[in-house]
Amino acid sequence: MASLQDYCVADKSGVPMNGFACKPPESIPGLNTQGVSMVRLDFAPGGVNAPHIHPRASELLIVMEGTLEVGFVTTLPETKLITKVLQAGEAFVFPQALTHYQRNVGKEAAVGIAALDSQNPGTQPVVAAVLGSCPKIPVEVVAKALQADDSVATQLQSKFK
Amino acid sequence: MASLQDYCVADKSGVPMNGFACKPPESIPGLNTQGVSMVRLDFAPGGVNAPHIHPRASELLIVMEGTLEVGFVTTLPETKLITKVLQAGEAFVFPQALTHYQRNVGKEAAVGIAALDSQNPGTQPVVAAVLGSCPKIPVEVVAKALQADDSVATQLQSKFK
Amino acid sequence: MASLQDYCVADKSGVPMNGFACKPPESIPGLNTQGVSMVRLDFAPGGVNAPHIHPRASELLIVMEGTLEVGFVTTLPETKLITKVLQAGEAFVFPQALTHYQRNVGKEAAVGIAALDSQNPGTQPVVAAVLGSCPKIPVEVVAKALQADDSVATQLQSKFK
Amino acid sequence: MASLQDYCVADKSGVPMNGFACKPPESIPGLNTQGVSMVRLDFAPGGVNAPHIHPRASELLIVMEGTLEVGFVTTLPETKLITKVLQAGEAFVFPQALTHYQRNVGKEAAVGIAALDSQNPGTQPVVAAVLGSCPKIPVEVVAKALQADDSVATQLQSKFK
Amino acid sequence: MASLQDYCVADKSGVPMNGFACKPPESIPGLNTQGVSMVRLDFAPGGVNAPHIHPRASELLIVMEGTLEVGFVTTLPETKLITKVLQAGEAFVFPQALTHYQRNVGKEAAVGIAALDSQNPGTQPVVAAVLGSCPKIPVEVVAKALQADDSVATQLQSKFK
Amino acid sequence: MASLQDYCVADKSGVPMNGFACKPPESIPGLNTQGVSMVRLDFAPGGVNAPHIHPRASELLIVMEGTLEVGFVTTLPETKLITKVLQAGEAFVFPQALTHYQRNVGKEAAVGIAALDSQNPGTQPVVAAVLGSCPKIPVEVVAKALQADDSVATQLQSKFK
Repeated sequence: MASLQDYCVADKSGVPMNGFACKPPESIPGLNTQGVSMVRLDFAPGGVNAPHIHPRASELLIVMEGTLEVGFVTTLPETKLITKVLQAGEAFVFPQALTHYQRNVGKEAAVGIAALDSQNPGTQPVVAAVLGSCPKIPVEVVAKALQADDSVATQLQSKFK
Repeated sequence: MASLQDYCVADKSGVPMNGFACKPPESIPGLNTQGVSMVRLDFAPGGVNAPHIHPRASELLIVMEGTLEVGFVTTLPETKLITKVLQAGEAFVFPQALTHYQRNVGKEAAVGIAALDSQNPGTQPVVAAVLGSCPKIPVEVVAKALQADDSVATQLQSKFK
Repeated sequence: MASLQDYCVADKSGVPMNGFACKPPESIPGLNTQGVSMVRLDFAPGGVNAPHIHPRASELLIVMEGTLEVGFVTTLPETKLITKVLQAGEAFVFPQALTHYQRNVGKEAAVGIAALDSQNPGTQPVVAAVLGSCPKIPVEVVAKALQADDSVATQLQSKFK
Repeated sequence: MASLQDYCVADKSGVPMNGFACKPPESIPGLNTQGVSMVRLDFAPGGVNAPHIHPRASELLIVMEGTLEVGFVTTLPETKLITKVLQAGEAFVFPQALTHYQRNVGKEAAVGIAALDSQNPGTQPVVAAVLGSCPKIPVEVVAKALQADDSVATQLQSKFK
Repeated sequence: MASLQDYCVADKSGVPMNGFACKPPESIPGLNTQGVSMVRLDFAPGGVNAPHIHPRASELLIVMEGTLEVGFVTTLPETKLITKVLQAGEAFVFPQALTHYQRNVGKEAAVGIAALDSQNPGTQPVVAAVLGSCPKIPVEVVAKALQADDSVATQLQSKFK
Repeated sequence: MASLQDYCVADKSGVPMNGFACKPPESIPGLNTQGVSMVRLDFAPGGVNAPHIHPRASELLIVMEGTLEVGFVTTLPETKLITKVLQAGEAFVFPQALTHYQRNVGKEAAVGIAALDSQNPGTQPVVAAVLGSCPKIPVEVVAKALQADDSVATQLQSKFK
């Protein structure tokens, strides 16, 4: 959203709107982010950040320590997986709202820092969204998506919460 | 993308760029869409449009014939499923890039028309993206996402292509 | 307007702003549209949707039944009319804010469904805006636009309300 | 369109696209405007700028000399005319793509300067678009819009070119 | 920010948000600008508008009377100054947020009118921002920027308020 | 700029346009960033990143190691300096195109990682832009900005290249 003043501190107590209202500029305990956010990712050896999407942002990841395998999948009709193994100092970009994952393929802990071009990018782990939403998606729908029987779908759903 | 002229006919033979270059306005076999597209959905009784996302558009669906159950899942931490059963003439909106599905829960064929606010919204069936990308996502990553054993992940992956 | 959360249900009772404030997500009788809207158009044989503009959206029209002649006019200096006759299943796009019309040129009723890339596209029938606004545009201005005498302008204006 | 470099000089000789390609920055005979344009308007006493729209920009007008009556019409269902008489130094804004006009209601020449928030706002004089497009809009459509007989429509159309 | 209704009159008494809330459309003493603003610049001979930026807008300047030297500086690594001397009727564009200045190099008063593509472009005179903010930027930081001693920085800072 | 396909690899050899043309998707040595970029900042004790702006992005900074004093200046009329001292793990946001700086006020080296919401944010060190552009801004303009004599301005300019 194009900014219309220098800055805006979110007032979460007030009228809910698209984003948040601004606090009076006199009271600045911190600044409402402006179309940008960051996240730190810590991975034990073998650790996985399961396939997920950010519906409102692209993500740029830089590896600070260790070795990460990263990948994202393109849309139909290709559904192509694009992967890379990143060493410390290397970066990769995940396009907006495409399914992607990271995995620590090194023997040490790995640390990444990611930048996203939205102040509220949102996160949806896609498998958990399909199998573990609240309430559950009807089993017939899940089974069709899995190309499996209802019993398989039910069993998979049961592991989520 | 804000338009800078009245219309632009896509020239797919030329320089690949963000979208397409425009054909000279003299040659108009059709008009390049302008931030909007539509799709017609036909469902046999029991038919399912498996959970998927459109990374670059919100979708507004109107049911023309029959009865459709529709639903989408919100982001973390709620991962809440919001569903509704729509009769002919009723509509529903799927927010941009959130996992959603449709299912014909009536006894007749069902038809829907959907509008999307992008000329290239893209589609990613999320289960197929995780289980059936090309090449495949490593089985360890898929297993973690499923909260299941590698053998279960391998078996599920094997059904995709 | 870029979205900053998964969805926003319009609260029309509250502070008027650019769009509407959002209702608390607990109370969802329906979802506020997200940059997209649709309209169904029904035409008797010979029926006309008079020249009009949508100031905040492009429009994509698909013919569901019957035969529609559609057209839009480009900007200066060409002021070119681009028309097409559409059968059921065919589509056409009207660029944002350009004057356009539809007419049923078949012998049966015609039905179209249109998608617009704004949740509040607005409609302005341009002839009615010039001849029938409230209050009326001064007759001298209308006459100049028509390249006609004031008496002609007055007579045309008198038919509008 | 968000800018991706400091400036871009339009290269009108090249690939037609959304806007223009940029000339190499070494050759700068002038700068391609950046989402903004201006226009000077000169009015003889009684002079009228007939009702028109700019499909891709809002317009902010400041009167430099003389006295201008200005007005615009809102969308359906109000189709309300909002007018004001401006003296030198006074300003008025015409919202994007709404039908508006200016008229010199003083006894001297009048001069206005207008700013528009697009580098290619476009102009469509709405009466001329309906009556004088090339080719002409079918007379039946024009007659319906005028709420008049075909003969009236034909006569009005005949004055345009 | 994309507009969602025909117009919006700012209600500065209400909830502070990104921009302003809208007054009820019944009370229209003036119209809230819509992504565009203008400014008149008057220069005595030799008069200077010191180097400054507009963080949220590009600026298009047209000279109405007299002769203005104008210039802006590009970003790193070039930091190139692009200048031009403008006579009445000539125009120039300053890209968004780049440091620029104007100077009357004629023997008469000069007048310019500028258009900016934001309703709140903001202005920051860059030298005053560095030397004369409230409170002051630490002298060591200012000295580094000036490539000068702390005593030089202190003396320069002392002239600002 | 809204994305119209999954990703776009910049082809810097081709037509210069707003951003870059895309390479054919078959040749992906890396991905063109998508509205987001990152930078690593290393500071020796006492080290200063002199006041500068990014004309096309907000910046979100997180301190990885050490202690950084950060600050930015608001626009007229306040020209207020807002500062904070950040320890490792703390973050701060610099609004788009506002003058800001960082300084290592700890006794150890400091490291920061910053995210910016543009793939080409641009950087303009404002004092160097005023004093050290190429060619130089006229000394009279610089002196006015400094509220100092021409001799002072000349001396300061002489230190830049």
